[in-house]
Amino acid sequence: MRATLYGGAYDITVGERPDPAIELPTDAVVRVLLGCVCGSDLWYYRGVSPHALGPIGHEFIGIVEQIGSDVTGLAEGDLVIAPFLWCCGECRPCRTGWPSNCIHAGSFGNNGNDGGQGEKVHVPYADATLVKVPAGDYDDATMKSLLALSDVACTGNHAAVSARVKPGQTVAVVGDGAVGLSAVLAAHRLGAERIIALSRNPVRQEVARAFGATDIVAERGDDAIAHVLDLTDGWGSDAVMECVGTGQSMDTAYGIAAVGSTIGAVGVPHDVVLPVNTMIFRNTGFSGGVAPARRYIPELLPDVLSGAINPGLVFDYETDLDHVLDAYQAMDERRAIKSLVRIGR
Amino acid sequence: MRATLYGGAYDITVGERPDPAIELPTDAVVRVLLGCVCGSDLWYYRGVSPHALGPIGHEFIGIVEQIGSDVTGLAEGDLVIAPFLWCCGECRPCRTGWPSNCIHAGSFGNNGNDGGQGEKVHVPYADATLVKVPAGDYDDATMKSLLALSDVACTGNHAAVSARVKPGQTVAVVGDGAVGLSAVLAAHRLGAERIIALSRNPVRQEVARAFGATDIVAERGDDAIAHVLDLTDGWGSDAVMECVGTGQSMDTAYGIAAVGSTIGAVGVPHDVVLPVNTMIFRNTGFSGGVAPARRYIPELLPDVLSGAINPGLVFDYETDLDHVLDAYQAMDERRAIKSLVRIGR
Repeated sequence: MRATLYGGAYDITVGERPDPAIELPTDAVVRVLLGCVCGSDLWYYRGVSPHALGPIGHEFIGIVEQIGSDVTGLAEGDLVIAPFLWCCGECRPCRTGWPSNCIHAGSFGNNGNDGGQGEKVHVPYADATLVKVPAGDYDDATMKSLLALSDVACTGNHAAVSARVKPGQTVAVVGDGAVGLSAVLAAHRLGAERIIALSRNPVRQEVARAFGATDIVAERGDDAIAHVLDLTDGWGSDAVMECVGTGQSMDTAYGIAAVGSTIGAVGVPHDVVLPVNTMIFRNTGFSGGVAPARRYIPELLPDVLSGAINPGLVFDYETDLDHVLDAYQAMDERRAIKSLVRIGR
Repeated sequence: MRATLYGGAYDITVGERPDPAIELPTDAVVRVLLGCVCGSDLWYYRGVSPHALGPIGHEFIGIVEQIGSDVTGLAEGDLVIAPFLWCCGECRPCRTGWPSNCIHAGSFGNNGNDGGQGEKVHVPYADATLVKVPAGDYDDATMKSLLALSDVACTGNHAAVSARVKPGQTVAVVGDGAVGLSAVLAAHRLGAERIIALSRNPVRQEVARAFGATDIVAERGDDAIAHVLDLTDGWGSDAVMECVGTGQSMDTAYGIAAVGSTIGAVGVPHDVVLPVNTMIFRNTGFSGGVAPARRYIPELLPDVLSGAINPGLVFDYETDLDHVLDAYQAMDERRAIKSLVRIGR
């Protein structure tokens, strides 16, 4: 089969890989329909974060092609969504709602594992990992939204859930990448009344508004803080979603957080120092982390299928496997929010 | 009137102060019955944290002696509990449950304000600040527990509430000072099934057990972490209360925190660096801060009056105003968990 291969910084190619096969009775093999490029893939692409040579891409939806003899919840031909990490479903983290912290977790598209930017994927613990989509004839917009559930929509949801967004609140989102925009959508879904999106990019502002943002703050740093405080009568935001993971973005998040609020953070930290004195003296908490996507997918799926939410709007660039490098370049050059890669049919 | 005066490191004396009077129609004057020494007073006593010269002591219960013309909820002769900070009751933090973050908050016993280690206290915003105790003939043990509601019992409660302690959980408390012990009590009250107290002091271990601790871990640092992990089958504690505020205690707290748990922290930070990568990759949150005592006092008061909880057990040393220096010394030398000061009748 053909798959996207990571060869080091700025080295993305399409090459041959052995076809995956059932190795354990709990495995499945999935034929990928749609994959995409994650913001975290960009860290690898730019050589900032380490990544194993070989397959890359951890988000995909596809069709079950083969199942092991112990797989009971799936059948050949099922349309499935894969969370970005597999999970066993039985360990304590899995049982307590933290499947991404499964003691058997592994990442698709890293460490030699098949990735979502390839034609087929070997899926361990298939019953626990994959979420079956009810049979149906879905249009392309819905398929894109199903793909978004693989990571970005769940990660945005984790920011909002972690920030304890409640109906009627005024909330703010730091970060206008695909995750930040997904956090806007999640906050809207959870009933936030006023959603302040920090973005200076007109294309992203437009998606933010489509997702429910009521206010756009285009400034950065101290000016952004001043603007949000101005919008909130000086009190700050009832809940803050931090969707970047840099020191500056975290400082902004704490600068706009009201007394007693919580920062819901989902960005992988780069040079972040948490302001512990501010946190203690203003009772501003910190919550979040690697999203428990496998827990959220079944929660969000009905709203995607009903059309209540359309998280696939974050895909504003698309290409096919032959041109997967373009997908990276478009995001690297900030021409795209998030790139879709059409792999199979 | 006579009051304890802070004159610098290790300089605690009893001196004369003008009798407080009603200055604004929302004021009250309270005659102090019982005061005490707080762990934070020790930081001042040792010269580690700055404190204004003059009155000291922010915890007290007493009898209302005078009220201003706008005070409607209190009458002369009422027994009242003062939270350690006054609050206006009307600003946004007050209305949203964060009275200690009141924009008009001020601390008793600092910056020239009357303190709880003196005979009388001028109380601003008396209706919003003071909590009236139903008339009754209370024994000495109950009076001590009412005094504990002024700060330490509420601060321990804030650690447990912030850590989201739930019925049936296995939880751990880092710190065996009066606040840590109060957190044990609070966790027990909230239904924790197993409560691991970290303490190597036999006297404090005994109070911890009286408050509901089921397991004592006497080690420190990495050995303490190993012991707690051993007690929890390697998973760590479902909730962790951090009641010290040092870098080492925070490291211990995060070392014993299960995936998905929250650290409820109430210690004023001294050299704390939060482990943001651990927090993100294990989904371990941070919550807490300066306790909203004025919110918790009415919640905890019925349980004190019914005898369901007895937070006054933290007082294991007592003296009178003439000997207030002894109260500090006993705590400084770790001969006492917490010192009570009998002021009036």
